[in-house]
Amino acid sequence: MADRVADLRSDTVTRPTPAMRLAMAEAPVGDDVFDEDPSLHELQSHAAALFGHEAALFTPSGSMANQIAIQLVVPRAEELLCDADAHIVTYEMGAAAAFGGISTRTWPFAGGALDPAAIADMIRQPGGYTVPTRAIAVEQTHNRGGGSIIPWSDLQALRAVCDEHGLLLHCDGARIWHAHVATGIPLAEYGRLFDTLSVCLSKGLGAPVGSLVIGSAERIAQARVIRKRLGGGMRQAGILAAAGLHALRFHIDRLAEDHAKARHLALALAPLGVVDPARVETNLVMLDLRAAALDAAQLTAAAGELGVLVSPFGPRTVRLTTHLDLTDEDVATAASVLTKLLT
Amino acid sequence: MADRVADLRSDTVTRPTPAMRLAMAEAPVGDDVFDEDPSLHELQSHAAALFGHEAALFTPSGSMANQIAIQLVVPRAEELLCDADAHIVTYEMGAAAAFGGISTRTWPFAGGALDPAAIADMIRQPGGYTVPTRAIAVEQTHNRGGGSIIPWSDLQALRAVCDEHGLLLHCDGARIWHAHVATGIPLAEYGRLFDTLSVCLSKGLGAPVGSLVIGSAERIAQARVIRKRLGGGMRQAGILAAAGLHALRFHIDRLAEDHAKARHLALALAPLGVVDPARVETNLVMLDLRAAALDAAQLTAAAGELGVLVSPFGPRTVRLTTHLDLTDEDVATAASVLTKLLT
Amino acid sequence: MADRVADLRSDTVTRPTPAMRLAMAEAPVGDDVFDEDPSLHELQSHAAALFGHEAALFTPSGSMANQIAIQLVVPRAEELLCDADAHIVTYEMGAAAAFGGISTRTWPFAGGALDPAAIADMIRQPGGYTVPTRAIAVEQTHNRGGGSIIPWSDLQALRAVCDEHGLLLHCDGARIWHAHVATGIPLAEYGRLFDTLSVCLSKGLGAPVGSLVIGSAERIAQARVIRKRLGGGMRQAGILAAAGLHALRFHIDRLAEDHAKARHLALALAPLGVVDPARVETNLVMLDLRAAALDAAQLTAAAGELGVLVSPFGPRTVRLTTHLDLTDEDVATAASVLTKLLT
Amino acid sequence: MADRVADLRSDTVTRPTPAMRLAMAEAPVGDDVFDEDPSLHELQSHAAALFGHEAALFTPSGSMANQIAIQLVVPRAEELLCDADAHIVTYEMGAAAAFGGISTRTWPFAGGALDPAAIADMIRQPGGYTVPTRAIAVEQTHNRGGGSIIPWSDLQALRAVCDEHGLLLHCDGARIWHAHVATGIPLAEYGRLFDTLSVCLSKGLGAPVGSLVIGSAERIAQARVIRKRLGGGMRQAGILAAAGLHALRFHIDRLAEDHAKARHLALALAPLGVVDPARVETNLVMLDLRAAALDAAQLTAAAGELGVLVSPFGPRTVRLTTHLDLTDEDVATAASVLTKLLT
Repeated sequence: MADRVADLRSDTVTRPTPAMRLAMAEAPVGDDVFDEDPSLHELQSHAAALFGHEAALFTPSGSMANQIAIQLVVPRAEELLCDADAHIVTYEMGAAAAFGGISTRTWPFAGGALDPAAIADMIRQPGGYTVPTRAIAVEQTHNRGGGSIIPWSDLQALRAVCDEHGLLLHCDGARIWHAHVATGIPLAEYGRLFDTLSVCLSKGLGAPVGSLVIGSAERIAQARVIRKRLGGGMRQAGILAAAGLHALRFHIDRLAEDHAKARHLALALAPLGVVDPARVETNLVMLDLRAAALDAAQLTAAAGELGVLVSPFGPRTVRLTTHLDLTDEDVATAASVLTKLLT
Repeated sequence: MADRVADLRSDTVTRPTPAMRLAMAEAPVGDDVFDEDPSLHELQSHAAALFGHEAALFTPSGSMANQIAIQLVVPRAEELLCDADAHIVTYEMGAAAAFGGISTRTWPFAGGALDPAAIADMIRQPGGYTVPTRAIAVEQTHNRGGGSIIPWSDLQALRAVCDEHGLLLHCDGARIWHAHVATGIPLAEYGRLFDTLSVCLSKGLGAPVGSLVIGSAERIAQARVIRKRLGGGMRQAGILAAAGLHALRFHIDRLAEDHAKARHLALALAPLGVVDPARVETNLVMLDLRAAALDAAQLTAAAGELGVLVSPFGPRTVRLTTHLDLTDEDVATAASVLTKLLT
Repeated sequence: MADRVADLRSDTVTRPTPAMRLAMAEAPVGDDVFDEDPSLHELQSHAAALFGHEAALFTPSGSMANQIAIQLVVPRAEELLCDADAHIVTYEMGAAAAFGGISTRTWPFAGGALDPAAIADMIRQPGGYTVPTRAIAVEQTHNRGGGSIIPWSDLQALRAVCDEHGLLLHCDGARIWHAHVATGIPLAEYGRLFDTLSVCLSKGLGAPVGSLVIGSAERIAQARVIRKRLGGGMRQAGILAAAGLHALRFHIDRLAEDHAKARHLALALAPLGVVDPARVETNLVMLDLRAAALDAAQLTAAAGELGVLVSPFGPRTVRLTTHLDLTDEDVATAASVLTKLLT
Repeated sequence: MADRVADLRSDTVTRPTPAMRLAMAEAPVGDDVFDEDPSLHELQSHAAALFGHEAALFTPSGSMANQIAIQLVVPRAEELLCDADAHIVTYEMGAAAAFGGISTRTWPFAGGALDPAAIADMIRQPGGYTVPTRAIAVEQTHNRGGGSIIPWSDLQALRAVCDEHGLLLHCDGARIWHAHVATGIPLAEYGRLFDTLSVCLSKGLGAPVGSLVIGSAERIAQARVIRKRLGGGMRQAGILAAAGLHALRFHIDRLAEDHAKARHLALALAPLGVVDPARVETNLVMLDLRAAALDAAQLTAAAGELGVLVSPFGPRTVRLTTHLDLTDEDVATAASVLTKLLT
């Protein structure tokens, strides 16, 4: 094993910067179950304002933020539509059904683009025995899609579909920061398309812990109830909020650097036939190993022994992630090690 | 309104025949919550044997039979895959998620044929945060598919996918009788492909009430527990079982008559451009009104005033159903009325 | 084993009488999922009127009737109070929590009488993290209480508690007929105390299958949705409704005979010190075997070998039930066999 | 309003000490969803060892720790017994039923002492329609009981009841530290009585955020799954763990000071007839205002205006809590203000 490990498994592995640690050490705090934590108030107001919404609520994880949001927009026993690779139905341990009682149907994921007409055809109205569709969820950027971005026009068309059918629209925006940085579309522009959003502070933004649910004041008041029921009501969470606030202030624009690193990796690996650089839009690089000598488990193991950590995402798919803690040297090491292993 | 109404809304509207009523009137009964009803025992054994399984359990509805079955094959918080038009995720009021806590993802319905490779790609293995796929459900024949039949080779290929990935396979066989009659494939041949089946006595078979869950003795013992929890434990249900037994004995083969009536209707309406007779495989006829002057609500209302009852199945889709209580004259009336309205 | 078995296990074992079978054989029926079954309409209207309520809905079991009712009066994650021996939290397989998501707290059962002040002390108001109490359920007559009757004044006092705190009041009235017959209080008088009732046709009243949820028209419309979700929507259930209607018309007053038989049994067994006849108010007789030579399992087995079937209700408790199918001779046999075994 | 507020509402309001903040600022961290956070490892090992168990898992709240634990010891649709004032059924928003599907029955709370025989009588065995009892939960010390301690002999007797009936025993030990300090019984002695415990770092111990579930290695592995499903999987939570570890090392023994302050308050207020000092065993003081001129809402408001914050716990009950951030002067102020208002 190499001395320094280049950890490309996820942007969740980032450790708080010294400035973040200082912000946490000095954070004024209070009891957030009593809604008295000034740092949380500041974080929540700041985040809501960024997206042009009335209110926001801090949660211990992105999964909890998503689960609260979909419980806000879909009553138990009714239906949410999303794509078949969405985080909500893939990586949240079945909470939508198990805890929310929410029925899901899915459309096939096909890269960043949506097919709003095909989605519209899936919508069901209430009836004597029909499960009525109540909301649609999209994921921006898309994790299993390799950080792909849903085009603005597709989002607008989907919003129109929702309006026509009386549906609500949720955005799993754990990495919406990357879409914003890559496209230049303001967060508030994204925000106004959605009834609820979840956004994550502890992935690309580098905060140690936390996500936010964002929406109307009325929905966020109800979100507090659901968060308490899920066991997500923390006390002096202002410690964490201070890091999150720092992240929102100083770590959004710098995501461009992570995107550049990802493109660099993609270009370096393109000659191996495992990645199309044109599909690397943000900070995730998906390697397609269908034609490679190693499968995902083998490549992950072999790279790990050479000090490069990557994530298997399927039998023959591996994900590389660039982030705050990954140096240029780490990127060079990763490119070199993976090239060696896949040649 | 005409004197006699031709009711093509559903095969659920059939009323018990005099012979069925006699069977009910004479049925020996006992307390089925104590598992002491001889007529139920006979029905359940007969049905299990038809499909080559060890055991069966009577339920008050097809929805309950399906919901019990999927709770048998998928633990709470884990995943069932099915098509996006399946009865289980469309017409059962969200019970899979709300009561079973079962997570669902769906593939697009594309007529009777399956794409086993595409389904295989959807399967997820257990992991630290992944929702693991545990079972797949198919619907034979398919209600929203207009009574379409999944080809035998597709079912075999899907069974192989399940075996390879350690998944269970459920069949919503509410109308499996029609597939059997149309294809000549024995029920026991269908039975051996599936870990659990639900079959319905009160649709095409004409019994007043009841469905059955079919499977191994161990699963059916557990099914009794789930049925009790759902409130489906009835007392002297042998009254209903006697009708069901009569239906199994005398009403399967005659479904060929219903299929002939459906084909007749399809051929009569084909010139209007609303149905392709080649797609009418059993007792359901879907009318595609996208190019018609009337939409589904308008056609349903107009036909109803002329004594022909049909079911709207979408904004521009209407379903016609042939069944035991529908005479040749009814079929002729329906063809004539619909032709008049759609011309 | 004796030739004729005296079955005192439960009043659920009664078989339909010839008159009931005739009523079923001749019943006009329709598709109740489409709400078109005339026999069901008649049964439901009749039952609602008996209790002075607007509407009623037929269900396949008493458990389903109770579960629907409590889902009507308590939102998910909120609270129902009942006694710790209530059928709802004892014999319904945990459905209240598992399917309804309803939180329960219980007061100790202490015979027929209630302590409305102690119940009032248990009520919790909504708050930032408190589970709010929404409804109270009582059971009249009480199964585990040996058919005990809650005094009218206690019910009135409890109703006042509910009104004061804004709670709804449900009655599990599976055997409310017995309370009515024993006390002379009209069913409509009972009815007006409760927001919802469940009543059973297949216990003392002798119908083969079915119960009813009773309440306002608005609540019963919602009950149809929940019944469908539970899989309790049946098709030509008028067959069963006809038996139920017959039971309501002809089998209520005759319960006095069952009460007399139960008193007869209690008086015959009183000298053995296993029952206090004063506590036998309706058709259930609880034997207290704490001082007896046989425990419940032993007595059940020994009596069974002598042709007398009884129900163990605890390690040293056995329940005897009188009902429509139990002759005077059966009662004499039971008294004689039990006396012999317990002497 | 006074300059300095004496906040006796809860021990959850404590803010991290400078030493804790330093520990957080310097904490080594990693991604805990990947189980790589060294500070969490240290905290979890330390806590498990304190209670003589194999493993522990950090959670964002005490409610989540309790809910995970009861999902570990009670399968969905089966039963947990606890007292009617327990935190689990009072202050956790109905999560046991809504998310765990766990059925609850309760015994009346009667101060610190238990009645193990009465609890044993409530236990139900599995059967064809019975909800089986699987576990019992106790709360040590008891929040609504005013910090009361269950006597050691009662706990031992209850453990024996559980062993006899094959039940598991959970301890909601959010404030078990106080029982340990007040009785001198080692935490490991408490630990060996219970199959699972939840303990809280952010109440009396003064850490900003966090609780732990404690149990066998196998159960804690399953706890990780449930925590993820609830959305409680955090990333670099070592920041919080460092504070918790500091609290476990330095803030347990000092609880004796809080107990002394509570006794001081009780003695000061005893002459008013609102509290019996003999019942103040730890850091909570319950004021019984049934004979007072002010009710709970009035006293809370009036004291608040004079700079003393207290918690209403019922219409005529107020709770005072002593803790790390409450000075001797605060206690004196509280005693003086409350005396003035209640005289």
